[in-house]
Amino acid sequence: MDESHVSLAHGNGGRLMRELVEAVFARHLGNPMLDIQADAAELPRLAPEGVMMVTTDGFTVQPLEFPGGTIGSLAVHGTVNDLAVSGATPRFLTLNAFIEEGFDLEQLNRIIASMADAARHCDVAVVAGDTKVVRRGEGGGLYLATTGIGIRPAKLRLGLNQVRPDDLILVSGPVGNHGIAMLLAREQFGLTGNLLSDQASVMPLTAPLLGMEGLRFMRDPTRGGLATVMHDIARATGMEVRLSQADIPVSDPVASVCEMLGYDPLFLACEGRVAAVVSPARAEEVLAIWQALPQGREAAIIGSIKPGRPAVVLDTELGGLRVLDELEDDPLPRIC
Amino acid sequence: MDESHVSLAHGNGGRLMRELVEAVFARHLGNPMLDIQADAAELPRLAPEGVMMVTTDGFTVQPLEFPGGTIGSLAVHGTVNDLAVSGATPRFLTLNAFIEEGFDLEQLNRIIASMADAARHCDVAVVAGDTKVVRRGEGGGLYLATTGIGIRPAKLRLGLNQVRPDDLILVSGPVGNHGIAMLLAREQFGLTGNLLSDQASVMPLTAPLLGMEGLRFMRDPTRGGLATVMHDIARATGMEVRLSQADIPVSDPVASVCEMLGYDPLFLACEGRVAAVVSPARAEEVLAIWQALPQGREAAIIGSIKPGRPAVVLDTELGGLRVLDELEDDPLPRIC
Repeated sequence: MDESHVSLAHGNGGRLMRELVEAVFARHLGNPMLDIQADAAELPRLAPEGVMMVTTDGFTVQPLEFPGGTIGSLAVHGTVNDLAVSGATPRFLTLNAFIEEGFDLEQLNRIIASMADAARHCDVAVVAGDTKVVRRGEGGGLYLATTGIGIRPAKLRLGLNQVRPDDLILVSGPVGNHGIAMLLAREQFGLTGNLLSDQASVMPLTAPLLGMEGLRFMRDPTRGGLATVMHDIARATGMEVRLSQADIPVSDPVASVCEMLGYDPLFLACEGRVAAVVSPARAEEVLAIWQALPQGREAAIIGSIKPGRPAVVLDTELGGLRVLDELEDDPLPRIC
Repeated sequence: MDESHVSLAHGNGGRLMRELVEAVFARHLGNPMLDIQADAAELPRLAPEGVMMVTTDGFTVQPLEFPGGTIGSLAVHGTVNDLAVSGATPRFLTLNAFIEEGFDLEQLNRIIASMADAARHCDVAVVAGDTKVVRRGEGGGLYLATTGIGIRPAKLRLGLNQVRPDDLILVSGPVGNHGIAMLLAREQFGLTGNLLSDQASVMPLTAPLLGMEGLRFMRDPTRGGLATVMHDIARATGMEVRLSQADIPVSDPVASVCEMLGYDPLFLACEGRVAAVVSPARAEEVLAIWQALPQGREAAIIGSIKPGRPAVVLDTELGGLRVLDELEDDPLPRIC
C-alpha cells in the first residue's frame, strides 16, 4: 500500500485510520481534553455568569494552501470569528475532515499543523474530531467542518434587534482581500499575484468593545461580502442602510482586479474583518480603538442606519445613489 | 435558473442561499433556538449537577436513502449514539451540509425531513447549521457533519479505564445489518434485498443502565464493526478480549451474504447496537433489561475480559481459537 497518500482504508475505523488520527490529527491538535479513544469529550465546568454560545461552519476553499493561510487556519478563524462577533470568547472546537482518496499525506500534515497554530493563537482547544475518506473523484481534496463553543457575558446586549435609527456603521479594514487573494492563487483569468488573504482571528477587534455602551451589532463579512451583511441588517431592522462608497476601504490590488473583471468588492469575501453598528455618540471611540490596532489601521465609518424602507443604498463616488441588490450569482465558488 | 436543483449560487451567502436555508433546513429543523440570522446560538443554562459532553461525526453514506433510513436520520442517530454510550443525554446538535451542485432539491427536502423526524424522536434540537455547495464532480452528492452536545451525571464512572478482568461483554442485537443493508441497497455484486439497516437511537438501551453498579463501558459499533470495538478494549486495558463466536447474534441475511462474499460480520458496521462491558455479578441483569426491550430482544453475552496479553481472540464454532486481527482494508467504503 502507498504510504504517502490517503487510501480508503484510512477511513474504515481500523488500524490505518487510528494511525492516521494519531500521526496527523492528534499529533498537531493534541491537548488534555482530546481523547481519541473516547466517544465524547467532557467539557470543563464554566463560570456560572457566562452564557454558552455555539456555531458551526463548513470549509471547501480552493486552493487548500494560499498566500496568508490554509483551509486549516481558515476553519479555525471562521468559527472563532462567528463566536467573537456574537460577543463570546471562543473556548472549544470540534473538527470533521472529509478527505479524498489519494490525498497527499504531507500536505494534510502541513494543513493540520497550520490549523493547530491558529488554534493555539486563538486559545481554543480541539476537543473532538472525526475523519471520513471518500473515493477518488467524490471529493474536492479536503473539506473541513468546525463547530465552536464559547462563553458570552450573560448581560451583554448585542444583535440585530439592538440597531436604532441614526446608528453608524463601521468596518475594521479593507474589504474583498480574501476573495481576490483566492482568485489570484488559482491563477484564474490568467491573473497572478501575491495578495495575502486577510484571514485572521477578529478577537483583537471585538474583545475591547465588549460591554461598551452603544455597541449594537457586529458581524464578520465572509461569503457574500460586506453587502450581504448590510442586507441582513436592512432585512432584520426594516430600515435603510446607507453606505458612502468613498469611505469604504478597498486595497489597491483588490480595486484593480475588480475593475478588470467587473467584480464589486462589496460582494467579495473577507475572513478577518468586522462590520459593526454603533450609536452615533460612541462611533468615534470605536474607530479610535480599532485604528490603534495593527489589524484596524484602515478602519472607517462607512455609513448609517436611516428610517425608511429596508434597502441597502450606496452613495456613489459619482454623487448619485445606487440600490445594492442582494447577491444572486456566485462570483467566486469555493472561497471559504 | 433551474429551480429544482441546487446551484453554486445556493452556496454564495446571498439570496438563494438564504431561501434554501429557509425553505429546506429551517422549515424542517426549526425550533426556538435555531436563529438563521445569528452567527452563534445561545444554549440554555444547564443543571449544575451535569457535565457537558461533546462529540462530532461526518457522514458520507451511499446511497443517501436506503431501507431503514437516510443520511439525515443516520447523522442524528450516529451523533446521539456517541453521546448515549458515554452516559450522556443528548440535547443539542449542529449541522454542516456539503451539497454537490446539481443535487435534486426534492431529495434534499426528503433527507432533511427524515433528519428532523429523527431529531424530534431523540428530543434533540438543531441549534446551528451551515451549508456549502461544491462544484459538480467535486462532491459525493451530499455529505453531512453533526456535532452533538449532551449532559452526563457528574458522578458517573464509565470508560475503558473501568474495565476489570473477568468482566463480561454483551451486545444488544445482531451485528452487521447496517453494512449488509448498504451493500444490498447499492446492488453491489449483483445482490439485492430489502434488509433494513439497524440505524436507530440507542438511548432506549443505554438510559436504563446509567448509574447501575458494575456497568464499566459502552460503545456503539459503527465503522470497523464489533471487532474494532473489541480491539479498542484490548488496546486500552492491555488484556485479552475473548469472544464466543456461537454466542454473537448474526441475522440470517447477513450471515448468507457474508458467506457468499467472504466478509466477516464482526467487521461490518452497525448503527443502532451497543456493546457493553459489565461486571460478572450484573451481566445477567443488563441482559434481562435489554431483552425486555423491542430493540434488545436478541441481546447476548458474547465474551469476557481475560488477564493476559492484549488481543482479541475468537472461540470459534469449530472449537478452536482464532486471533482476530485489526481491520486493514476497507470492505465497504461510504458505509456511514
